[in-house]
Amino acid sequence: MTDEPARGKRTGGRAGRQAVRQAHATPRVPYITRTLEPFEVLDEEGLELIESNADTILERVGIEFRDAPDALKLLESAGCKVQDQRVRFPRGLARSLIRASAPKAFTQHARNPENSVEIGDAHTVFAPAYGSPFVLDLDQGRRYGTIEDFRNFVKLAYMSPYLHHSGGTVCEPVDLPVNKRHYDMVYAHMRYSDKPFMGSVTHPQRAQDTVDMARILFGADHLEDHVVLLSLINANSPLVWDSTMLGAARAYAEANQAVIMTPFILAGAMSPATVAGTAAQTLAESMAGMAYVQLVRPGAPVVFGSFASSMSMQSGAPTFGTPEPALVLYTLAACARRLGVPFRSGGSLCASKVPDAQAAYESANTLQPTVLGGVNFVLHAAGWLEGGLAMGYEKFIMDADQCGMMHAFARGVDLSPNGQAIEAIIENGPGQHFLGTAHTLANFETAFYRSNVADNNSFEQWELEGSKDTAERANAIWKRMLAEYEPPPIDEAVDEELREWIERKKASFPDSNV
Amino acid sequence: MTDEPARGKRTGGRAGRQAVRQAHATPRVPYITRTLEPFEVLDEEGLELIESNADTILERVGIEFRDAPDALKLLESAGCKVQDQRVRFPRGLARSLIRASAPKAFTQHARNPENSVEIGDAHTVFAPAYGSPFVLDLDQGRRYGTIEDFRNFVKLAYMSPYLHHSGGTVCEPVDLPVNKRHYDMVYAHMRYSDKPFMGSVTHPQRAQDTVDMARILFGADHLEDHVVLLSLINANSPLVWDSTMLGAARAYAEANQAVIMTPFILAGAMSPATVAGTAAQTLAESMAGMAYVQLVRPGAPVVFGSFASSMSMQSGAPTFGTPEPALVLYTLAACARRLGVPFRSGGSLCASKVPDAQAAYESANTLQPTVLGGVNFVLHAAGWLEGGLAMGYEKFIMDADQCGMMHAFARGVDLSPNGQAIEAIIENGPGQHFLGTAHTLANFETAFYRSNVADNNSFEQWELEGSKDTAERANAIWKRMLAEYEPPPIDEAVDEELREWIERKKASFPDSNV
Repeated sequence: MTDEPARGKRTGGRAGRQAVRQAHATPRVPYITRTLEPFEVLDEEGLELIESNADTILERVGIEFRDAPDALKLLESAGCKVQDQRVRFPRGLARSLIRASAPKAFTQHARNPENSVEIGDAHTVFAPAYGSPFVLDLDQGRRYGTIEDFRNFVKLAYMSPYLHHSGGTVCEPVDLPVNKRHYDMVYAHMRYSDKPFMGSVTHPQRAQDTVDMARILFGADHLEDHVVLLSLINANSPLVWDSTMLGAARAYAEANQAVIMTPFILAGAMSPATVAGTAAQTLAESMAGMAYVQLVRPGAPVVFGSFASSMSMQSGAPTFGTPEPALVLYTLAACARRLGVPFRSGGSLCASKVPDAQAAYESANTLQPTVLGGVNFVLHAAGWLEGGLAMGYEKFIMDADQCGMMHAFARGVDLSPNGQAIEAIIENGPGQHFLGTAHTLANFETAFYRSNVADNNSFEQWELEGSKDTAERANAIWKRMLAEYEPPPIDEAVDEELREWIERKKASFPDSNV
Repeated sequence: MTDEPARGKRTGGRAGRQAVRQAHATPRVPYITRTLEPFEVLDEEGLELIESNADTILERVGIEFRDAPDALKLLESAGCKVQDQRVRFPRGLARSLIRASAPKAFTQHARNPENSVEIGDAHTVFAPAYGSPFVLDLDQGRRYGTIEDFRNFVKLAYMSPYLHHSGGTVCEPVDLPVNKRHYDMVYAHMRYSDKPFMGSVTHPQRAQDTVDMARILFGADHLEDHVVLLSLINANSPLVWDSTMLGAARAYAEANQAVIMTPFILAGAMSPATVAGTAAQTLAESMAGMAYVQLVRPGAPVVFGSFASSMSMQSGAPTFGTPEPALVLYTLAACARRLGVPFRSGGSLCASKVPDAQAAYESANTLQPTVLGGVNFVLHAAGWLEGGLAMGYEKFIMDADQCGMMHAFARGVDLSPNGQAIEAIIENGPGQHFLGTAHTLANFETAFYRSNVADNNSFEQWELEGSKDTAERANAIWKRMLAEYEPPPIDEAVDEELREWIERKKASFPDSNV
C-alpha cells in the first residue's frame, strides 16, 4: 500500500477503539428519515396479484440453486421440493420463512458510531455507485480504475455529508490481482473512512476475509450482536442463484452480517419486457435468496434488493432513468414493506457516457422514485455513468448534491408557526418585498437547500467566470476535496494488526487474475 | 410577415373550417390522463391549516386591486370590504364565489378538434416555456428572440407529439414593436400549428384583439360556448393584482375564455422564505383573482396558477429544481383539488444558462413533482433555461422527450395477462434469456419508452459517432424537424380574413415600444 494515511494516536484495545470511534472528522448529515408516505403505483389488489404471481413462479418453475448442495439440503428440509438443482417452494413458504426470522430493520454500525445507519423502516441511506471497471474525469477521460481511484472515491464519500455510507466496489482496482484486490479495497473503506461499508462477494473466501478483517477492526466478539457489514449478493436472473454468491452470502450470514439479495435484471433479457412480469420475477428470486439466508442463520439481516433497468429493444443496450424501471421500483418497494424487510434499489442511474444532460435527466428520474418510493438502502447514489461501466468523478459530485436536495425534500412541509409565516405576511402587506423582513433574516441561513454545484448567477456573471458548465464546476470541487482530505483517526494498534494480517494473507498464496 | 406557409385548399365558411380541422398533420399523443393517485405531502389537517391561513391573509391583510375601479365595485357588492384599493374578503367568501360557478374542468378547443385538450380533473397538458426575451442554440449562442424564433418554436411544438399545446409567448419577438407584436404572435399559433394556444395579456386591448382574431378563426358564435383561449394572468405578488392583468382577464372572461390566475413568486422576495407561507399566500392571491373572474362572468373557466421558485439567499438569484418549490407544488395541487378548479404549475424549470447537467437535474426535479402532483396545465414544459430568460432550442428537444417519458410513467403498471407475463416466465425457465421468446417479440415495439435524444450505445460506438453529448444530438434533431416542417392545412378564406384584419389593425395606429 503506497497511499499511507497519517496515523492516529496509539490507544490500543477495545476502549481505545471506542474512543477513536467517537472522534468527529467531517461534517455529517443523518440518513433520511421519511416524514411522507411513499408514493404507490398499485393498490392492495394489484400488489396481491404481483405477490401471487411470485408464488406461482416459485411453485411451478422454481429457482435453481447451482452447485450449492448445502442450499438444496437446507431448502428441502424446510419443505421445498428439490429436483436436481431446481428448488420449488410451496405457495407462501418463502414468505413465511422470511417473516419468521428476518429483521424488519437493523443498524449497520460504523467504526465511528455517529455514522452508524438504520437500514429499513422509514429510513433512506445513500451509498456510492458500485462495480465499474472504468473511471472518468474531465482531465484524463475514461480509463481503467486503479486502487488510487478506489481510495479517492472512498475519500470523497467520506467527505460528502449527504452520502451516509462508504459503499463497496466504488470502482474496480484493475491494477491489483483479482484474487487479492479485496484486501486493499476493504482496508481502504476501513482506513480512509469511518462510515459503514460493504464487503467482498466475488468468492466465499473473500467474504470470509472481509469478516475476519472486520473482527480485527471492531473486535472479534463485536460482530456477533452488531451488524458491521452489508454486502451485495446478486442473483443470476432469470431464476438462478449461483454457488459463488450463495457461498459469500453464507459466510456473511453465519457471522450475523447483512446481505442484500438482489436480482440484477435487464428487463426484456433477464425478465419479460413488462413491469408486472419483472416485478413478480424479482420478488420470487429475491424471496428465494432471503429464505435461504434465514435457513443458514435465522434472524441474520437480509435486504430485499432490486436492480431493474429497461433496455433498448433495438440494440439490446440497457437504458436507465426511463419510466418502466421507476414503476418496477415503486411496485417492489411496496412489496418489501408488505414482506417486512428493508429494500434496496434505485440510485442515480444513467446510460450516458459523460456527465451531461442525459446523465442528469436519467439520474434524477431514478433518484426521485428512489426517495418517493421509500427505498431504504440506495446503492449507486453517486458517480454512476454508462450503465455502471464507469465511475465519474464529476458525476459523483453532482449526484452527491442531488442527494442533499433529497434530504431537504424528505423533511416535508414545516408547519411550525415559523414555517407558516402568517405573522410575517400580515406585517408585510401588499406590494412590499420580504427581503429585509425580520422573518426572512431569521430564516436566511436555512430557508432553502444550497447546492454547491449549481450556478444561479446572471448570464453575464457566469460568462465572466468562464462560462463553465456543471461538469467543469464539479471538476474543481472534487479536486479541492481530495486536496483537503484528512483521514479519520484510527487506533494505531488496530491499524497495524490489520496491515500485518493483510500482508500475511497476501504472502500466503500466489497472485491470480481469476 | 415573411415566413409565409403554403396555403391549404380554399373551402370557406364554417363547414370548411370544420373540414380542415379534421385533417391530420403530425403524429399526436393524447394529453395525459392520470391513472395514479397524486403524491401528497400534507394530510387533511395540514391542508386545512394552509387554507385557513389563506383565509386569514384575505381577511386581515386583503389584496390590492390596483387602478381597477370595476373590480373594487364588483368585489364590494359581493361582500368584500373595500378600503382605498385594498379588498378584504370575509373568511370563506373567495372560496364560495369560486365554488359557486367556476368549472371543475373544461375543454380547450383547438382548430384541429383532435388536438383539443381537457384542462382539469385527472388530465395533464404540456405546453412550451413562456416569456423569455432571449433564445439560445449551440450554433448562434444566446441572443434576443425574433419572430422567426417564435415561429420556429410554434413549429417545433406542433411537431412534438408529447407537447399538447402551442403555448403563448414561446419567446419575445423583440424585433417587432411591443404594441403590435401580439398580432404576429397570435397569428403564428393560429397558422403554423393546429394545437390550442394562449392569448396576449400585456394590455387589455391586446387581449381583446386576441379574442377578435379567435372569432375570425373559429367563427364569431363559436366562442360563446367553446373555450379556445387559455391565457396567463400574473399577480404582482405580494398581494397585488394590477389593472393591466385584471383588464386582460376581464376581456377574456367576458368572452367566456379561460384565464390562469397565477401568483409569480420568488420565495424569500415576493413571499416568506418558507413552503407553508408561500403556499398560503399563493392560495390567497389566486383565490382573490379567481373570485374576481367569477364576478365578471360567473362560470367563466379559471385555472388556479402557481409559479413558485426558491432563491439563493446569498445572491438573491432565483433557483429552480430545488426541494422547496416541489413541496409548494405538491401542497398547492392538493389545495386546487379541494377547491375544485384546474391547477397550473411546474414544467421543466432550471437556472442553468446552458442545456447541461444542471439544467437537466433541475428540470427533472420540477417535472417529476409536476406529474406526480397531478398538475393539469403545465406551462414551461419544454425549452426553459436561465430562470426563464432564455428559450433553448436544444433544451426544447430534450424536455419534449422527458414529457414523452411522463406519458409512459403516468399510464402506471399494466396488469393485463400480457403485462403480468406469467406464462412467459413459466415457459422460459431458469437461466434462459427472454430476448427471443414469443412474449418479448410480441412486446418488442411498445415495451419501453423510446427516447429520441438519449444515447444508449456502447462507449466505443458513441465515440465512433463523434462523442456527442446530449445537446449536440438535440441540435441535429431540431434542425431536422424544422427542415421537415409542413404547416397544417387552413381554410384559405379564413387565413385571408385574419391577415387582412391584422394589416388593417397594424395600420390604424403608430408603432411603439411600450
